Amino acid sequence: MTTQRIPVVEKILSANDRLAEQNRARLDAARVLGINLLASPGAGKTSLIVRTIQALSPQLKIAVIEGDTAPVTIDADKVSAAGAAAVQVNTGGECHLDAVMVANAFNALTLDGLDLLIVENVGNLICPAAFALGTHLNVLVASVPEGADKPYKYPGIYRGLDALILNKIDLLPYVDFDLDYFRRGVEILNPGLSFFPLSCRTGEGVEAWMEWLQKQAAHHRFSADGSASTVGK
Amino acid sequence: MTTQRIPVVEKILSANDRLAEQNRARLDAARVLGINLLASPGAGKTSLIVRTIQALSPQLKIAVIEGDTAPVTIDADKVSAAGAAAVQVNTGGECHLDAVMVANAFNALTLDGLDLLIVENVGNLICPAAFALGTHLNVLVASVPEGADKPYKYPGIYRGLDALILNKIDLLPYVDFDLDYFRRGVEILNPGLSFFPLSCRTGEGVEAWMEWLQKQAAHHRFSADGSASTVGK
Repeated sequence: MTTQRIPVVEKILSANDRLAEQNRARLDAARVLGINLLASPGAGKTSLIVRTIQALSPQLKIAVIEGDTAPVTIDADKVSAAGAAAVQVNTGGECHLDAVMVANAFNALTLDGLDLLIVENVGNLICPAAFALGTHLNVLVASVPEGADKPYKYPGIYRGLDALILNKIDLLPYVDFDLDYFRRGVEILNPGLSFFPLSCRTGEGVEAWMEWLQKQAAHHRFSADGSASTVGK
Repeated sequence: MTTQRIPVVEKILSANDRLAEQNRARLDAARVLGINLLASPGAGKTSLIVRTIQALSPQLKIAVIEGDTAPVTIDADKVSAAGAAAVQVNTGGECHLDAVMVANAFNALTLDGLDLLIVENVGNLICPAAFALGTHLNVLVASVPEGADKPYKYPGIYRGLDALILNKIDLLPYVDFDLDYFRRGVEILNPGLSFFPLSCRTGEGVEAWMEWLQKQAAHHRFSADGSASTVGK
């Protein structure tokens, strides 16, 4: 049964990749940095987005695409309340966003004038790793109460990351979390990965993430000018 | 692209349902109660299984099928150390177990003489809801740090449950978790659902779960005798 699916899934992935390239071209033409924000359910993607908007929106114009597997606007409402444009995408039960959904969401956004587009993917550590969206960077929000073994159990998603956040470090005194074991697992899969332990609840550690993100956005604008086309990704 | 997938997925689901019925018949013939244990990554499925083995293995003979999306034996090792037979199923990157994988795992187990088979599904709140395994009861492990909005965001999995565990209640003092909001969401989707708030870490609340599970196993043995075929599900 599983083998029956493979040719169809391969065709879908190939078509998805072509559309993801078109999405990337639209972001680059508008000089917008696109972030694909990944996590398991409840790790804190929306909390991180709200914190990021609050910290950076004076300097950066930010919009958010909210992916949900059900027709609820809980996260989109929080993002709107924080002051950013939010577009809700209901995947209709699908376990991940794909490039078609993101392309459709682009039509509900004004890309020109934006600096940063954050795409909050569906809460899932498996399926989203297989579908390119056209964004520039993959960022995962892990969280302390999930446990330190997640890199070992979900290697596919960790391999494709450009940055890793470890949220809820305020809970470290109350749970069994072996940070060294976690970091060793990450290092095997993705050596030298940018790593930001922080707490969206208390604010501890968030500055390093904000600085990194601002640098990425500035670098992207610089590259997109064509004046420094050989620099970075 | 999404629509291209539908006919193939429907055929797979229909074939899966037929094989799930065969799995169910094998469990019933051996008078084994099968539990499909669901959760997002890190909610505490394995911790609950280990606690359950430790509490009930004098009275019930328990075996476990461990579903993982990667070839790691972290959970199977914990279950074996707790004293139960464990069969590891690597889904090869797939986001859920299916009835074929469970049927194959049956061949590595001796069902005769077992009372309880716990199938630990892949950590995922979406895909496992669509694939019947042949087990008798669906049990979800939610957890406090995931947040109280999960029933609203992942309604599909909550609708199909026979029991709901809320793990990590020892963290309630340290996180923002609105228990009333959580329970209202559950009640809308699945009125009267058996609900067990507990902490696998401290042991608080685990007795009620153990009592419920023992009753289910006893009830199942009674029904499987044929002496009470009209009783229960």
